[in-house]
Amino acid sequence: MTSPALPDILLNPRSVAVIGASDDPARIGGRPIAAMRQLGFAGRILPVNPNRREVQGLPSYPSVADLPEVPDVAIVAVPASQVIDVVTALGERGTRAAILFSAGFAEVGGDGVAKQAELLAVARRTGMRLLGPNALGLFNVHTGFVGSFASSIALAPVRAGSVGIVSQSGAYGGHLVMAAQAADIGLSSIIMTGNEADISLGEVVHLLVDDPRTSVIALYSEGINDGDGLVAALQAARRARKPVVMMKVGRSEVGGAAARSHTASIAGDDAVVDAVLAELGVVRARSTEEMLDIVRLATRGVYPADNTLGVITVSGGAGVIVSDAAEELGLPMPEMPAATQARLLELLPICAPRNPVDTTAQFVNDLSLIRPFTEAMVREGGYRSVLGFFTYAGATPAVAPTLREQLAQVRERYPDRLYVLVLQGPRDVLRTYEDAGFTVFEDPTRAVVAIAAMGRFGRAFAPQDVLPAPTIAPVELPAETPSEAQAKQILAEAGIACVPERACALAESAVLAAREFGFPVVMKILSPDILHKSEIGGVLLDVQDEDAVREGFATLTARARKAVPDARIDGVLVARQVSGGVECIMGIKRDPVFGPIAMFGLGGVFVEVLRDVVFHRCPFGEDVAERLIRSIRGAPLLLGARGRPVVDIAALARTLSRLSAFAVAAGPRLEAIDLNPVFAMPTGNGAFAADAVIDVAAPPADSDN
Amino acid sequence: MTSPALPDILLNPRSVAVIGASDDPARIGGRPIAAMRQLGFAGRILPVNPNRREVQGLPSYPSVADLPEVPDVAIVAVPASQVIDVVTALGERGTRAAILFSAGFAEVGGDGVAKQAELLAVARRTGMRLLGPNALGLFNVHTGFVGSFASSIALAPVRAGSVGIVSQSGAYGGHLVMAAQAADIGLSSIIMTGNEADISLGEVVHLLVDDPRTSVIALYSEGINDGDGLVAALQAARRARKPVVMMKVGRSEVGGAAARSHTASIAGDDAVVDAVLAELGVVRARSTEEMLDIVRLATRGVYPADNTLGVITVSGGAGVIVSDAAEELGLPMPEMPAATQARLLELLPICAPRNPVDTTAQFVNDLSLIRPFTEAMVREGGYRSVLGFFTYAGATPAVAPTLREQLAQVRERYPDRLYVLVLQGPRDVLRTYEDAGFTVFEDPTRAVVAIAAMGRFGRAFAPQDVLPAPTIAPVELPAETPSEAQAKQILAEAGIACVPERACALAESAVLAAREFGFPVVMKILSPDILHKSEIGGVLLDVQDEDAVREGFATLTARARKAVPDARIDGVLVARQVSGGVECIMGIKRDPVFGPIAMFGLGGVFVEVLRDVVFHRCPFGEDVAERLIRSIRGAPLLLGARGRPVVDIAALARTLSRLSAFAVAAGPRLEAIDLNPVFAMPTGNGAFAADAVIDVAAPPADSDN
Repeated sequence: MTSPALPDILLNPRSVAVIGASDDPARIGGRPIAAMRQLGFAGRILPVNPNRREVQGLPSYPSVADLPEVPDVAIVAVPASQVIDVVTALGERGTRAAILFSAGFAEVGGDGVAKQAELLAVARRTGMRLLGPNALGLFNVHTGFVGSFASSIALAPVRAGSVGIVSQSGAYGGHLVMAAQAADIGLSSIIMTGNEADISLGEVVHLLVDDPRTSVIALYSEGINDGDGLVAALQAARRARKPVVMMKVGRSEVGGAAARSHTASIAGDDAVVDAVLAELGVVRARSTEEMLDIVRLATRGVYPADNTLGVITVSGGAGVIVSDAAEELGLPMPEMPAATQARLLELLPICAPRNPVDTTAQFVNDLSLIRPFTEAMVREGGYRSVLGFFTYAGATPAVAPTLREQLAQVRERYPDRLYVLVLQGPRDVLRTYEDAGFTVFEDPTRAVVAIAAMGRFGRAFAPQDVLPAPTIAPVELPAETPSEAQAKQILAEAGIACVPERACALAESAVLAAREFGFPVVMKILSPDILHKSEIGGVLLDVQDEDAVREGFATLTARARKAVPDARIDGVLVARQVSGGVECIMGIKRDPVFGPIAMFGLGGVFVEVLRDVVFHRCPFGEDVAERLIRSIRGAPLLLGARGRPVVDIAALARTLSRLSAFAVAAGPRLEAIDLNPVFAMPTGNGAFAADAVIDVAAPPADSDN
Repeated sequence: MTSPALPDILLNPRSVAVIGASDDPARIGGRPIAAMRQLGFAGRILPVNPNRREVQGLPSYPSVADLPEVPDVAIVAVPASQVIDVVTALGERGTRAAILFSAGFAEVGGDGVAKQAELLAVARRTGMRLLGPNALGLFNVHTGFVGSFASSIALAPVRAGSVGIVSQSGAYGGHLVMAAQAADIGLSSIIMTGNEADISLGEVVHLLVDDPRTSVIALYSEGINDGDGLVAALQAARRARKPVVMMKVGRSEVGGAAARSHTASIAGDDAVVDAVLAELGVVRARSTEEMLDIVRLATRGVYPADNTLGVITVSGGAGVIVSDAAEELGLPMPEMPAATQARLLELLPICAPRNPVDTTAQFVNDLSLIRPFTEAMVREGGYRSVLGFFTYAGATPAVAPTLREQLAQVRERYPDRLYVLVLQGPRDVLRTYEDAGFTVFEDPTRAVVAIAAMGRFGRAFAPQDVLPAPTIAPVELPAETPSEAQAKQILAEAGIACVPERACALAESAVLAAREFGFPVVMKILSPDILHKSEIGGVLLDVQDEDAVREGFATLTARARKAVPDARIDGVLVARQVSGGVECIMGIKRDPVFGPIAMFGLGGVFVEVLRDVVFHRCPFGEDVAERLIRSIRGAPLLLGARGRPVVDIAALARTLSRLSAFAVAAGPRLEAIDLNPVFAMPTGNGAFAADAVIDVAAPPADSDN
């Protein structure tokens, strides 16, 4: 039974019941009422309290049953023991959604887990949606609907704007709201999801994607429970051109352990999270401050897919700092055209006109130069982003009005560019620049990080001209983990090429196979009970002639019997010994959050010591596969470095892409695939897996799943 | 002729002449006078202006000659054309130091370079020291001595404190001062060095090391001209236990180019800068903000060499963020002792007591828990640094006074720990925490970066129990770049082992050598005119028998004659073919700033594709060498990864250390050494260079250098 779609009414209710309403505006059941009245919420507020006729001056009702109307949304602020009854009553009256402040469910473990399951069952039965339990709730800044008891909302007036905040943590959500206030970021809605018994992180993101008052989304996550839902929401955000900045914590081992210990979430592998977010065009922030810097600039709505940075500065040093940061972030800073440079030098002989364009502190002597300089950068330099470093000089009374006017003239003519200023000074002066359309930073490095992020959004929002993933018919996996030969057979049927080889039950058929492939050959023991052959000495390399094949057959069989006495032995695999290629590794692992994930890397030390691997969600086409392959640090080794051959990248990409499609076609019983090594042969000669392991989960005991 | 030691009087003059004094406090020649009078500078101010009897109410003198006394320091604010005359007059009167605001010297190139040299000659002749020219000058915040025309000083009152700022850039120095003001950092002195014709960056740092009012130094550099001087100053800072945070810009290629284009500096290789600063215990900041965060915390004077982090938090999410950041920075966060955890759980059953210690938002219900919790962390957890995440809650009127008092009680009992809080709220409330000894951050990630830096200072300040560098007698390098055999001979005399080998002028002596070493052997052409032998096919591997040696001799000779017809050919080098070791690379390069720098890495793809190398200033002992070797990413390959042998790290370290001592003993004519490969053999079997190139500069034409 799936849950009904999350109604927009959760953000925009016409009527709100508050169950456990308190007359004390400081208490949890009193805060939402006090806040909504203070903020002028226009909907009807319906307090429920068995002991009072009136709450904070509003008529109060003894129970849900006594409510004079069915509320769109209910806020539930009663002890855990009463929540089931209240939710049942609300659901049965037809309430669309409830926000559950109450704690004492899955987050406390034990009994709480069962109570949460019961809650969910009631919700499903009645069709009511639940936010929480254990949720700090939500706040629509524009309408004044406060379905939250967060004290941060009461502490400072929240400025209305276009940034929606989603947080899985209540306490950190509050911190975020306060930090956003301090940074003067206008907010649309703030939603804190709590235990996510019903409404998931992805659904909440989707709510903001659909919210016309939200144009930028800041997302704080400690653990993703519904990977598919979140992916769908992030894809919707991209289609809607709404940038998402995400802080997914638990990157480190210590941090991951801490995240698990304090939420009911399963932390996925962090490199996978990185890969998925990059794929979806989400910018992952490494700190709260970075997240807020990026969303603040994102509210300008300028996302240049072909981002370039032009810098105009009064300090050469600042120009160097900006250049360093831009290079690290891959943000291009092309030179100004030579003719323009010459012209600027005529205007101001002491300037450095290349880019950074350094006017030196002399600019204060003739502020009218700012417009022609900046305009030259925008028009002739063609920069999509312009950063002006004017530091404290730009905020002095003598300079600020003229500088702002000069810059505003350029912005008016070229409104499609991103304009960022580094200034220091009184907040009210900086605000005048902000109001004129310039985003102000006090630190140049932080400014560059935010500008680079806008380009990443631009590329994510640009039409995605990618190849479709290969079509592979659903694959019926065997009932148990297949032998190497079976595995290769299965993969071959999916178009994944393996090194020519044959399963041989008898020594003499092995000799025949070797003769056909040509010497030397590789021989491997063949048994469904021995997955990792080399560990038991079950692989022979460089088998040079027919006698050696016969001898090898006997050796391998004997070793297998000794190592795993009751192993079923199907014989020996004989394969052509490939040489002249570059050893790679490909694989699939099932991520608990995001499903099958493809992996690619160079073999040997590169994967084992240097962890030089890349990941991508399955499935994907050959172009994406090629991009992945080229993105590893060791990529030069595939492209002819150190006297190696240039390998058949196209074949490698085809193999990886087909593997990704196979992983999806194989369904949820596929646990992992390990192709190690895959030989990438010289261009035109293909790529071949030389070993293959497919890990398969047991079929479900009960087939009418 | 060396310059006289920089007098402290530059920071603390009793009398100051201002040459080019202006009555207008807004003009460059007027600003220092106005500022000094406003700030109550107690020394005598002596304006010099040929056209006025009085300047800003002070008696003025027509010329330097007319001054009633010899000023300790002179500020020179006259046009470039008059500077030489003024400086000559000042020097001849016995002025100790001059601060030259005037521009138009080396920074403009051409004629300016010669003028600057002339200036320096006058200074040397008269014994007067010069800051600048083209310098924004210096400002002693404590005494009000303003030898600067920086407008930033006039814009906001600079708070006196213990942080000294040194900046090579004037404009960025001003930005730094303003940013420090905004961050409420108290400053001791600010020095901006300009062209550094005479007084170098290192001397200025030394001045602050010797200044009792400065305890922390922030250093902004665009290019280091005097590496030895700076190294000596940074070593002095370490001995004095004064932390230095340095921002050395020009990391990137674009940035480096921008730095060169706007200063007269030579930007060194950035990885070398990293290595030298790490060696000297200087923390390199990546942004202005990071630099100021670190100096702000450093003013607490707590530098724990054995830094560990304990976190007490009201938000599990914040705990995860902090854990992530700490792990990335290598800052340990050990668990609380089990017994303590049990005790804390009794005090507050819903807490997570491991570390991060999560009190949840419940802490506000019983603030008296904060002291026992924090004290348990300090006393039983033994953390050297404690970070409390209390966000906006900690700054509310209901919480702040009690929380501060609870924490202060702990700090009083354990003043040797580092106490950092993450709070949000009104500045005056945060200030009360600062005044009570707690350093406040608004972003948890930034707090962790600063805390980790304190540990790095602590380790730098701890007694350095390192082995001395090996003693090697001065080496007389040959007049020209030696052949491989000569190079190995030279190195062998310095105790650097090479693969057994012999130079053979005749084919038959090559056969004898091969017989002695055992087959297979390696053969290489021997010629002082052919440095990179493999490029001309001048190396033969796997030479298996005596006939092959004879044939190889002929082949190599023929190839050499063909490739370099006029090459001098000394014969062929025969060497034992080493196998079973791990290929490494060692080298020396002469850095233009820091002199000979040793390099170590794994050979082959690791150095060429992955740039997995480390650097260190020469010379150093075997313990430092071993630490370097173990610090490369690929180190597991030396320690037995992937079935390799564990190599003889001690021999490798001995070789690297001796190489570093050799580089110094060889003197300035040594350009570079390349030992590639060095075979690291299994433990107990040594390390051998299999190839050696020593690049030598021509001897100086004029020997009475």
